[in-house]
Amino acid sequence: MDLIINFTPTGMVPDKTMTPYVPVTVAEIVEDVHQAVEKGITIVHLHARDEQSGQPTSSSELYGRIIEGIRSFAPELIICVSLSGRNVRDVRHRAEPLRLDGALKPDMGSLTLSSLNFARDASVNTPDTVLSLAAEMDKRGILPELEAFDVGMINYAKYLAGKGVLTPPHYFNLLFGNIAGAQADLLHLGMMIRDLPPDSFWSLGGIGQAQFTVNAMAVAAGGGVRVGIEDNIWFDTRRSCPATNAELLDRIHLLAQVHERRVMSSAALRSTLGLHKGFGHYGREV
Amino acid sequence: MDLIINFTPTGMVPDKTMTPYVPVTVAEIVEDVHQAVEKGITIVHLHARDEQSGQPTSSSELYGRIIEGIRSFAPELIICVSLSGRNVRDVRHRAEPLRLDGALKPDMGSLTLSSLNFARDASVNTPDTVLSLAAEMDKRGILPELEAFDVGMINYAKYLAGKGVLTPPHYFNLLFGNIAGAQADLLHLGMMIRDLPPDSFWSLGGIGQAQFTVNAMAVAAGGGVRVGIEDNIWFDTRRSCPATNAELLDRIHLLAQVHERRVMSSAALRSTLGLHKGFGHYGREV
Repeated sequence: MDLIINFTPTGMVPDKTMTPYVPVTVAEIVEDVHQAVEKGITIVHLHARDEQSGQPTSSSELYGRIIEGIRSFAPELIICVSLSGRNVRDVRHRAEPLRLDGALKPDMGSLTLSSLNFARDASVNTPDTVLSLAAEMDKRGILPELEAFDVGMINYAKYLAGKGVLTPPHYFNLLFGNIAGAQADLLHLGMMIRDLPPDSFWSLGGIGQAQFTVNAMAVAAGGGVRVGIEDNIWFDTRRSCPATNAELLDRIHLLAQVHERRVMSSAALRSTLGLHKGFGHYGREV
Repeated sequence: MDLIINFTPTGMVPDKTMTPYVPVTVAEIVEDVHQAVEKGITIVHLHARDEQSGQPTSSSELYGRIIEGIRSFAPELIICVSLSGRNVRDVRHRAEPLRLDGALKPDMGSLTLSSLNFARDASVNTPDTVLSLAAEMDKRGILPELEAFDVGMINYAKYLAGKGVLTPPHYFNLLFGNIAGAQADLLHLGMMIRDLPPDSFWSLGGIGQAQFTVNAMAVAAGGGVRVGIEDNIWFDTRRSCPATNAELLDRIHLLAQVHERRVMSSAALRSTLGLHKGFGHYGREV
């Protein structure tokens, strides 16, 4: 299968004091996505930041400006908005970017499948929150980007699929290397992939130093990759050289070339996931 | 190795409307533990309930009365108090049972290693809370009963052990069958056991219908079991016959007999885990 590249340029954690290369303003994010599209990506996973403070925000106005900027040069790129509750606990507020409409409507929204701990804080996603975000996406014709950090989150996805809350085909980002999650270990990866519900597409991401290891395992195993400064700010394992998003993508493209895998086009993945149906920004309905 | 039986009579969820057999008052809990000790158990994992409302409580007064009752007939039984945050989020309040002293001092306190979701709610255990409860137990000479519902929680335990926050020997309860956790699947069990830090003792528990399956796998694999109405109110898989704690224990003893495994005495596990050192209620210091 062609290689899904899910590009995560910004995230919620990296700021300019950690790395000069993290894009935080609308212009910076749009520029990094522009470069990425020229290299070749399939999906972009966006986090908006407040233009003054650099802090994560759920502002639909900011998400809208980023999406407008990206669609001006890459109308077909699959755009996923973050609905993270790491800093924002009110579910209506979290769901704000889903309300963008017409040419600004996102294709996907991230859906973390349970509560979990990161190194310093808890990301609380109660069952009610997960159900409410899934229902909002269903109503709006937006596909959940299912985010699993551990084995049990996949079980919960299967439970939701059994209830009809999630309908196939599914798209998963599986994340490894979080301190309280599954690790960059072949058995952990293998088990989570084995556990996926039928008709699932998946990309693997790694936190920090785990990023390249996990990406490489994914490329070798025939899956997709999630890659970008969101998960990892360093290019080298000695953490001496801060990465640019372009460098992280170049390395994935090099791997893909060695493995004789082509990057999956957004159009191909749209067709596979049914993302062409009813999406305001795509095709004739714009 | 002899069979560790960690008896969990009450928990936070079952109430008299769900099963008449869940012990909730001090007298009922003490009576169920008395029966259990006569049958043979190694550890008891206690949850106190408000005598009027039947709701879970962190009241050290109630925990103290239960412990006093148990120690009157089983001075050597290893007693673990719950420090669950499922209903109680303030960490000082959660830690209350740890402050019991002298003959009422518990041997162990439960320590859930991350935040997670149950079917209907989130159990929030931030890194700060976990660290704070671990520090309080360390200061008081109380051993954490490490509680892991998924692969990543074991990674976090290893991280804490590497930092010296947890010191071996470790005791783990591994829980399977929670909707957003690891399941009653041989690969899930095997991976979590493989991932344990060196010098770890473990018991396996299962939620609901998973209880007997997981207990049986544990007995067969040479590990310990966590068993009781806390995790499962039914005796049969058709959920037609509510279980008593005595019946659940009888079934484990039957399994143990078939496997030619003796129940580990509290004295033997105390010696293995170093629980005889500095514990006010044990030996000469009482």
